[in-house]
Amino acid sequence: MDLTTVNKALEIIINSSEDFGIEEVNFLNSVGRILKEDIVADRDFPPFDRVSMDGIAICSESFEKGQRKFKIEGIQAAGSPQLTLLNSENCIEAMTGAMLPKNTDIIIQYELLTIENGFATVHLEEIKEFQNVHLKGLDRKKEDIIINKDTIITAAEIGVFATVGKLKVKVAKQPKVLIVSTGNELVGVNENPEDYQIRRSNVYTVVSLLEKLQIKAETEHILDNKEVLKIKINSFLNDYDVLLFSGAVSKGKFDFIPEVLEDLGVEKLFHQVKQRPGKPFWFGKKVYTERSRSEKIIFAFPGNPVATFVNCLNYFYPWYYKSMNLDFTNRPQAILGEDYFFKPDLTYFLQVKLSYNEGKLIANPIAGKGSADLANLVDSDAFLVLPDDRNEFKKGEVFPIITYR
Amino acid sequence: MDLTTVNKALEIIINSSEDFGIEEVNFLNSVGRILKEDIVADRDFPPFDRVSMDGIAICSESFEKGQRKFKIEGIQAAGSPQLTLLNSENCIEAMTGAMLPKNTDIIIQYELLTIENGFATVHLEEIKEFQNVHLKGLDRKKEDIIINKDTIITAAEIGVFATVGKLKVKVAKQPKVLIVSTGNELVGVNENPEDYQIRRSNVYTVVSLLEKLQIKAETEHILDNKEVLKIKINSFLNDYDVLLFSGAVSKGKFDFIPEVLEDLGVEKLFHQVKQRPGKPFWFGKKVYTERSRSEKIIFAFPGNPVATFVNCLNYFYPWYYKSMNLDFTNRPQAILGEDYFFKPDLTYFLQVKLSYNEGKLIANPIAGKGSADLANLVDSDAFLVLPDDRNEFKKGEVFPIITYR
Repeated sequence: MDLTTVNKALEIIINSSEDFGIEEVNFLNSVGRILKEDIVADRDFPPFDRVSMDGIAICSESFEKGQRKFKIEGIQAAGSPQLTLLNSENCIEAMTGAMLPKNTDIIIQYELLTIENGFATVHLEEIKEFQNVHLKGLDRKKEDIIINKDTIITAAEIGVFATVGKLKVKVAKQPKVLIVSTGNELVGVNENPEDYQIRRSNVYTVVSLLEKLQIKAETEHILDNKEVLKIKINSFLNDYDVLLFSGAVSKGKFDFIPEVLEDLGVEKLFHQVKQRPGKPFWFGKKVYTERSRSEKIIFAFPGNPVATFVNCLNYFYPWYYKSMNLDFTNRPQAILGEDYFFKPDLTYFLQVKLSYNEGKLIANPIAGKGSADLANLVDSDAFLVLPDDRNEFKKGEVFPIITYR
Repeated sequence: MDLTTVNKALEIIINSSEDFGIEEVNFLNSVGRILKEDIVADRDFPPFDRVSMDGIAICSESFEKGQRKFKIEGIQAAGSPQLTLLNSENCIEAMTGAMLPKNTDIIIQYELLTIENGFATVHLEEIKEFQNVHLKGLDRKKEDIIINKDTIITAAEIGVFATVGKLKVKVAKQPKVLIVSTGNELVGVNENPEDYQIRRSNVYTVVSLLEKLQIKAETEHILDNKEVLKIKINSFLNDYDVLLFSGAVSKGKFDFIPEVLEDLGVEKLFHQVKQRPGKPFWFGKKVYTERSRSEKIIFAFPGNPVATFVNCLNYFYPWYYKSMNLDFTNRPQAILGEDYFFKPDLTYFLQVKLSYNEGKLIANPIAGKGSADLANLVDSDAFLVLPDDRNEFKKGEVFPIITYR
């Protein structure tokens, strides 16, 4: 049996990444999407010498000469045009967010003042240059790049879009993804299964996993009939960029997926991976030379729930990130919380519960009852990736971690 | 000046948490919501003795007696009613996911067989009890609790809902939240600001931060006019469970929020916190004795962008989690990546960039230029919480971390 290693499988998948182009969306709908333009400052930030504490604006020269009592000339409010201090021995009350009044250069905050009869008295012996003034352009100069393209957009980026007036932002287009389950034993969530049937669940877990990437996938179910599979999959290949299958890829009499895909001209890039769960995983692509969208990508995961789940995380996610041109080299790791033994020469995706201990991420194994135990996923929150070349794993050793919460 | 410590402020906020009741949603729309019912197994899992490898089903007694060649009686497919092995010296081909045929108790996988002329020959010397059979009820028994209430729903839980036929699930109702910005210097994202104006951004960052909690907040902007503020806020108090303000809570001449709130009968629970950024933070509640919904909660954050951002994460999030009855005791921590000095006796929310090193989470400070530097948030991905009772923080020390990516 010729198994592809997990690393080799990942390499092949990453080399099959694709650019799906760019689209513009309203900035408020862009969270989780991948930015595809540099965001530049439309002006200096701050755009003016900005008051950063409520107090009085004075001319520091007067203070340095020993003056401590200042007549109040007026109030500089935030959102008002800049005032001018007419007499350098006077002051102007100035509010946080306001422009620093002309002919002043420092702010003395209210906490250090007594104000009486139109005069402010300063209780302070030393001042600093531009005290409580956030100088124009200190954070960013006009035309500076604030956000680089190829960034995953979060609330922090949303704030910058708003600040520079970016109502629409360019983001990576999402691939069109269809999730297909097969298997005559599967019935709908709303149905009452017979003794020998179970409800479909994998398509919904995968829909949810893809939603985390802001991909709105569609779903289909097909019975184990070779002719029906062929007709339907042929049409899916026309309509979608990526097909994710769950089931029918192993050695069973009705595991028609690999055969049907190859009949339809999909090139097998590997079948069977040196891993548990998910050994029968099949991956391929179809190249259309006559079209603009040149490649269709097919992930055919084994049907057992945990295999589909972890394979989607370990293979589809990196394919997606690479397609979006994201860097994912700094992958998280965790520390094994207790000794673990795993006999087969397979990479093992160990279900673990994570906890923090003094800045360390500790992964404690959750006893599973085989890869089909979907229920176990709700008791854990990640998979620790144990390599295939060893059987004994010691408490304290560090391994890559795939989280899903 | 009487500052409330960060821990005391958090304690007061958590004691103001509220139960917003329960609603039912379609299971597919429940990701990120808080489950409010125990999910129980509607039958045993697996619901039958389930074939877990493709191969032949035999009676182990025949094997133990030395028999290695078995006549094939038929095929047991997944999704078909259970077959019966008529002659205990024969076998039935059986597929993954199928019911184990009656009168058989083990599966020998295809990899260990030769099949010729209707006979399967086994190349194996030893068998295990129930080999390749996933026994009925092994994962969960009917009526077992699979998911406990008060769980944040992820893709893993979605799979379980589907499996047990839970089309609708009970989740915590979300609070109705309004985010209100104030400040005459603020203009819309689509406007061209004058020299002394800036665009509104805080309401959008807070909307995005609340979206992460699946809360769809609404937004408003009010100018710095005491009468207008009073009328509008009074009506907001009627219509929303929670008001989040940004701005107008400090010592400025136009910082009317605390005064207006108190005029409207909102009880101040604290004002000014021993922290940077966000010292002027004001928090209170209004109790309506005559109504069913008894309390309104008001977070009035300072207007500078980073203060609003980190205060939302550090105060609103825990209030929300506590209101949802979630446990958040195992808060993440990170290790300071270099020595850091911070003079004021304030808790400091240090902007950091996170990286993994051998299972440790390392937080490296990002040089900021004051709390108003929104642009800086895009270069970092978390805040390290440095306590207020020290000024020197050494590389290698561990502190709580607040992540936002």
